[in-house]
Amino acid sequence: MSTLDINQIARRAKDAYLELLGCSEADKNEALRAIARRLSEREAEVIGANRLDLEAAQQAIHAGEMTVAASKRLICDSKKLKNVIDGIGQVIALPDPTGRLLESTVLDEGLVLDRISCALGVVGVIFESRPEVVVQVSSLLLKAGNAGILKGGKEARHTNAVLMETIRDALEKAGSVPRDALQLLSDRRQIQELLACDDSVDLLIPRGSKELIKFIQANTKIPVLGHAEGICHVFIHRAADPEKALRVVIDSKTEYPAVCNAVETILIDQAAPDSLMANLIRALQQSNVSILGCPRIVEKFNHLEKASEEDWSTEYLDLKVSLKIVDDLKQAVRHINDYGSHHTDAIVTEDRQAAEQFCRYVDSAGVFVNASTRFSDGYRYGLGAEIGISTNKVHARGPVGLDGVVTYKYQLRGEGHIVADYNSNRRRFKWLKR
Amino acid sequence: MSTLDINQIARRAKDAYLELLGCSEADKNEALRAIARRLSEREAEVIGANRLDLEAAQQAIHAGEMTVAASKRLICDSKKLKNVIDGIGQVIALPDPTGRLLESTVLDEGLVLDRISCALGVVGVIFESRPEVVVQVSSLLLKAGNAGILKGGKEARHTNAVLMETIRDALEKAGSVPRDALQLLSDRRQIQELLACDDSVDLLIPRGSKELIKFIQANTKIPVLGHAEGICHVFIHRAADPEKALRVVIDSKTEYPAVCNAVETILIDQAAPDSLMANLIRALQQSNVSILGCPRIVEKFNHLEKASEEDWSTEYLDLKVSLKIVDDLKQAVRHINDYGSHHTDAIVTEDRQAAEQFCRYVDSAGVFVNASTRFSDGYRYGLGAEIGISTNKVHARGPVGLDGVVTYKYQLRGEGHIVADYNSNRRRFKWLKR
Repeated sequence: MSTLDINQIARRAKDAYLELLGCSEADKNEALRAIARRLSEREAEVIGANRLDLEAAQQAIHAGEMTVAASKRLICDSKKLKNVIDGIGQVIALPDPTGRLLESTVLDEGLVLDRISCALGVVGVIFESRPEVVVQVSSLLLKAGNAGILKGGKEARHTNAVLMETIRDALEKAGSVPRDALQLLSDRRQIQELLACDDSVDLLIPRGSKELIKFIQANTKIPVLGHAEGICHVFIHRAADPEKALRVVIDSKTEYPAVCNAVETILIDQAAPDSLMANLIRALQQSNVSILGCPRIVEKFNHLEKASEEDWSTEYLDLKVSLKIVDDLKQAVRHINDYGSHHTDAIVTEDRQAAEQFCRYVDSAGVFVNASTRFSDGYRYGLGAEIGISTNKVHARGPVGLDGVVTYKYQLRGEGHIVADYNSNRRRFKWLKR
Repeated sequence: MSTLDINQIARRAKDAYLELLGCSEADKNEALRAIARRLSEREAEVIGANRLDLEAAQQAIHAGEMTVAASKRLICDSKKLKNVIDGIGQVIALPDPTGRLLESTVLDEGLVLDRISCALGVVGVIFESRPEVVVQVSSLLLKAGNAGILKGGKEARHTNAVLMETIRDALEKAGSVPRDALQLLSDRRQIQELLACDDSVDLLIPRGSKELIKFIQANTKIPVLGHAEGICHVFIHRAADPEKALRVVIDSKTEYPAVCNAVETILIDQAAPDSLMANLIRALQQSNVSILGCPRIVEKFNHLEKASEEDWSTEYLDLKVSLKIVDDLKQAVRHINDYGSHHTDAIVTEDRQAAEQFCRYVDSAGVFVNASTRFSDGYRYGLGAEIGISTNKVHARGPVGLDGVVTYKYQLRGEGHIVADYNSNRRRFKWLKR
């Protein structure tokens, strides 16, 4: 595929999408089953290719160009592949998100307007490290009738290539959907070219580092679904249950610190008991979390290191947290709206009214009460699968499942109806909802 | 307001939006009623300001810088103002689009996830000519709890300024919503600055010429809702009822040729009877529509002028149409998907299966059967009001009402739930839909 230029690739994707409009749910599920089968059959090849990527990663670690943690994300062994194949089964089990009647209005006798969900079009997905994303994203896009142009990181290039080859091979053999519904870009320079394809690509989903996402947002006219960072907060309100407060904070910070839904700043109400503050600090320190405190908390607990102004907008992605005393709920909300990334923020309180205020005024995709920020995830939300997480206000917000890769169209059926009849008052609209 | 820089304006809009989060439906409707009242009271001032704009327009006409048609769009007389005030009443009557429970899932015992509609944030609306847009857009944005930054055309600047002054005056007196919820930019240079406010502006809605919209799309990171042009088609299928075909074509082309939902290209099935082709051409010519034909139709009707390749992607916005013979439904669909602007396209046919195929394969926001393309409009669709028309695939598509200026947030309520319990299989998700 590397000999094709981006315009050919985009044109093929567009044609495949238009052809997919004619595919039934059964056609799409048949193709997904074929992919699952073929991946099983070619397990040895996938693992072989993955070995090449892992060897290169070892060299990169020795050269100080990659962390051990990053290299672990590249692994695609037998167990991982089994999970990935199981994931395809889950996508097959999801209801078809297209062809649903969302709304129906009788505009007038014999004139009916239906709003119907349909595939979005051509979706570009740019991601880093984890090669299993090739399969996950491909199956979600296909289920919704979209064509996908994928670009993975070069650190997993051998694995990515074999996975995509296997997928396309399966599509060709199954014959129920066009093979060019899914294509993989092989060259980093093609990203820049892809960003210019605003005539043929309908949506871009970047998944990876803040730098990658900001670069993409700044360099394309194509709509971008994503989140640059997750500066999540837990606010411990004066009416918090102390035990719940510690549970939620420790889980939000330590359950998996390297991800976007981990907490980065803890806000504590000045009216919370000193004992709760002391227990919170102790619990964090016992979990090896280093704490950077605001002046007020450092005055009370003078062994704490001081936070700088920058800390309030820093995503540590590590066992590190900033801690601030706030006057009240209102100040907590203001801090979150000013410094947060509108991803996920939680309050711990037994006061129902305070909880409602928090949920109303915090301007984030996820507002949680007495629950860990780590729940902010497509799988945990029950979306079946996740194509990305969005901190946008438009289109889709928060963890995004199949709903994020469909749109709708209006279908109007008449009997020769014309607007002149309504503008001249010969006829009148009825607008009856069905 | 002209002394404020754009960052101050954007900051005030953001603060107003955050304050609006606390406003009830009653607060918002009270503010809307106050606006309607105040506009009535200040009718003389509005008309006086409008006179200045109309005088300037007269001079522009004499200087050959404005058409008479364009100057008519500037009129804001007593009758127009009454319509505008009635429009506010219609917006008041619409249900509040925010605070609606869209979806609810019990993730586990005591852990409930709700998806709730909410205001979008700060919306920038850039428009040309018609000053009544100030009031229409302001009332829609306010109803949905958004803050708006508006920029009208300089040709209506006196009228726009008095209208916005009146609106803000009414908000201040009513006191139920912040006055800075609505602001008007007064200087053309501020558009460029507004486009750079991607930190505080959540959505841009340009309404006006193709050039304006393309300029905005190309120069901002803020999501843009709009449509650059409307290249709409009517396809007369071989199984068309001849009378319906003529009605639909004539209405689509002549009812109001200067708007985006007027038809620009007519496709006719080669298997349609010659008599239908002849009658179609005669009917168009009797309506003073000039026709540019494809080689095949010009061969049959050699008095017709020939269309160039460019004609198939030209939006005439005039009593002019291109006409092409196609082999069949499939070729019609391909022509529409290749040359159209994905706005609104219609088929005339009595063949239900052909109609279904057309609706499925035509990749447009509106796909119509036996109805005029002119129905593609928020008012006619029964959306109550229209904030714009979108040919985007993301967020909102087609005529966009209040739904286009809201988003949603996820609210998760637990009892100290943590993710570690699920990752260790101590607890399992239930995902029960409510």
